[in-house]
Amino acid sequence: LVQVNLAFIGFGKVAREFARILDSRRALLEDEYGIEWRVTGIATASHGVIVRADGIDLAKALRLLEAGDSLNCIEGDWTGGDALEFIGRVEADIVFETTPLDPVAGEPAVGYIEMCLDRGINVVTANKGPVAFAYRRLKALAESRGVGFRFEGTVMDGAPIFNMVDRCLPATRLIRFAGILNSTTNLILSGIETGQSFDVCLEEARRLGILETDPDFDIDGWDAAVKAVALANVLMDVDLRPADVERVGIRLIDPEYVRAAAREGKAFRLVARGGKIETGARITVRPEIVERSSVMGLAKGTTNVLVIQTDLMGETVIVEESPGLQQTAYALLSDMIGIHDGMNRKK
Amino acid sequence: LVQVNLAFIGFGKVAREFARILDSRRALLEDEYGIEWRVTGIATASHGVIVRADGIDLAKALRLLEAGDSLNCIEGDWTGGDALEFIGRVEADIVFETTPLDPVAGEPAVGYIEMCLDRGINVVTANKGPVAFAYRRLKALAESRGVGFRFEGTVMDGAPIFNMVDRCLPATRLIRFAGILNSTTNLILSGIETGQSFDVCLEEARRLGILETDPDFDIDGWDAAVKAVALANVLMDVDLRPADVERVGIRLIDPEYVRAAAREGKAFRLVARGGKIETGARITVRPEIVERSSVMGLAKGTTNVLVIQTDLMGETVIVEESPGLQQTAYALLSDMIGIHDGMNRKK
Repeated sequence: LVQVNLAFIGFGKVAREFARILDSRRALLEDEYGIEWRVTGIATASHGVIVRADGIDLAKALRLLEAGDSLNCIEGDWTGGDALEFIGRVEADIVFETTPLDPVAGEPAVGYIEMCLDRGINVVTANKGPVAFAYRRLKALAESRGVGFRFEGTVMDGAPIFNMVDRCLPATRLIRFAGILNSTTNLILSGIETGQSFDVCLEEARRLGILETDPDFDIDGWDAAVKAVALANVLMDVDLRPADVERVGIRLIDPEYVRAAAREGKAFRLVARGGKIETGARITVRPEIVERSSVMGLAKGTTNVLVIQTDLMGETVIVEESPGLQQTAYALLSDMIGIHDGMNRKK
Repeated sequence: LVQVNLAFIGFGKVAREFARILDSRRALLEDEYGIEWRVTGIATASHGVIVRADGIDLAKALRLLEAGDSLNCIEGDWTGGDALEFIGRVEADIVFETTPLDPVAGEPAVGYIEMCLDRGINVVTANKGPVAFAYRRLKALAESRGVGFRFEGTVMDGAPIFNMVDRCLPATRLIRFAGILNSTTNLILSGIETGQSFDVCLEEARRLGILETDPDFDIDGWDAAVKAVALANVLMDVDLRPADVERVGIRLIDPEYVRAAAREGKAFRLVARGGKIETGARITVRPEIVERSSVMGLAKGTTNVLVIQTDLMGETVIVEESPGLQQTAYALLSDMIGIHDGMNRKK
């Protein structure tokens, strides 16, 4: 058994669900992966910060947070302070970074991750910002420090996209991809198709907890653009930014058009596309009219789709059916095991 | 650079396509994977057998075989003999086994693979028989000899199924799967849908080179059953045989029924299903009526689909669009790189 110390920056819904999965899989992780984990630190923005080298009582931390209380009630080696001070003090093998995304620059997540990697701590993030805004830099930093930087949960929740291309499609080259990557706009477009209003669908997205803090970020295609850039930066070896995407959102789509298309067997979908070009990659996000009976047209509600085309494998499609919180949380587990395998390989 | 010696048992269309891919990716394999390969042996059933420790001229071997000539024209350390003698003599790190499948017992492939593993040679097979008939035994043998046994190409050609579950869905449990795994029957059913006759579709399958040597093996659902058992044996840790499958083929399907269903937006598909039960797994292969606008209904022609449901990740769908020879051949490359990574990890 290897003792693995885990720490959290941000401890919202995804991180808490991950904590519950960790707890329920304790025996499995010990038996099958040789991982004996404990949580040595949790930093939240408004519910306290705690560092404790001999392990925090995770169940108690979850109870406090669910009740809206502060982690500072738990006795620790150190409490209070901010995330940066936390990173400097916590003794962790892996930090899970799940702070809310600032879509303009990816901060403060990029700074947090940079500091962790620089300290020689492996990082798993569910935050697409750092991959879209600073992948090349963070990857180089991780390599120079000999640690891992993983982010499977950033695109299509836990569906294995980055890991699949990396581990299961060796020696291939990604030529292009096309996908439905934003759940809110897909919920709206497929809802309008069946006669619902834009606002009712938007409310449904809010109820499901999939809406970004600022809904414009979904509706104007920024979320899809950030994810598409993350895909391109990692899988096509480019260094683009969300502002480089040719982007049209769904704000100006007339519901009547959507319904008229539906009557003719067509569907509007917000499609993100990336393709290799001579100077790097061209990425577009915009509404497209697709056949209702196509893999894109079939994707309704929160279902995500990604079509990847490689030189040796042709077209492979991955569909993640109506993912929820558990799938995103699972991505953190998958990345944690990946990092653990990587650490052991080096030894 | 690591020198990797490759040998072939069976050198038909798939193996030859793989040889062409190997040749075209020589620089990539050296630069990115540190693999410097050469072919030290090829055994065919009716076009000769050759062993040559310092490497066979692969281009020449391909030319001879494409012209219908014998490999025995190439100067080797040893030529002639049969596959078993070949296995005893060849100096190889990895053997690629691609002999035709005997659907009744998986032989002679199982015997060949067993002998290779026993000699401490890694094995990659594109042959589903051994996985359906002897997976548990072969896996145990490979582990006891410290070598790899891989078979990504056996189900859905090169689409990463086994490798994805193994490498990208750690700590999950497969609860059930459902798939369209046989291209011939899908070509027939989706062809009848559009007004073609059974026999015309069958001829089309023959022309595409996807028909089994004995077409009954496709039509009566044996091929799908063998693949479903391979999936269950590997991913659900059971030890079933194709005869354990509840199997109904498409022989008795009335084309008029298929067309009537199509008019109502439905489609007939030969669906393979596997589900965990208390005593292991239950596997069925039979025609099902699905919505034409469902992920199964969309699969037309040779397109394959697999839906997998795990405890932590819900439903994930993988679609391999109209795969060809290159995809199956790619699976051999993917497995070769996987074995190479595994060998290096042990060092």
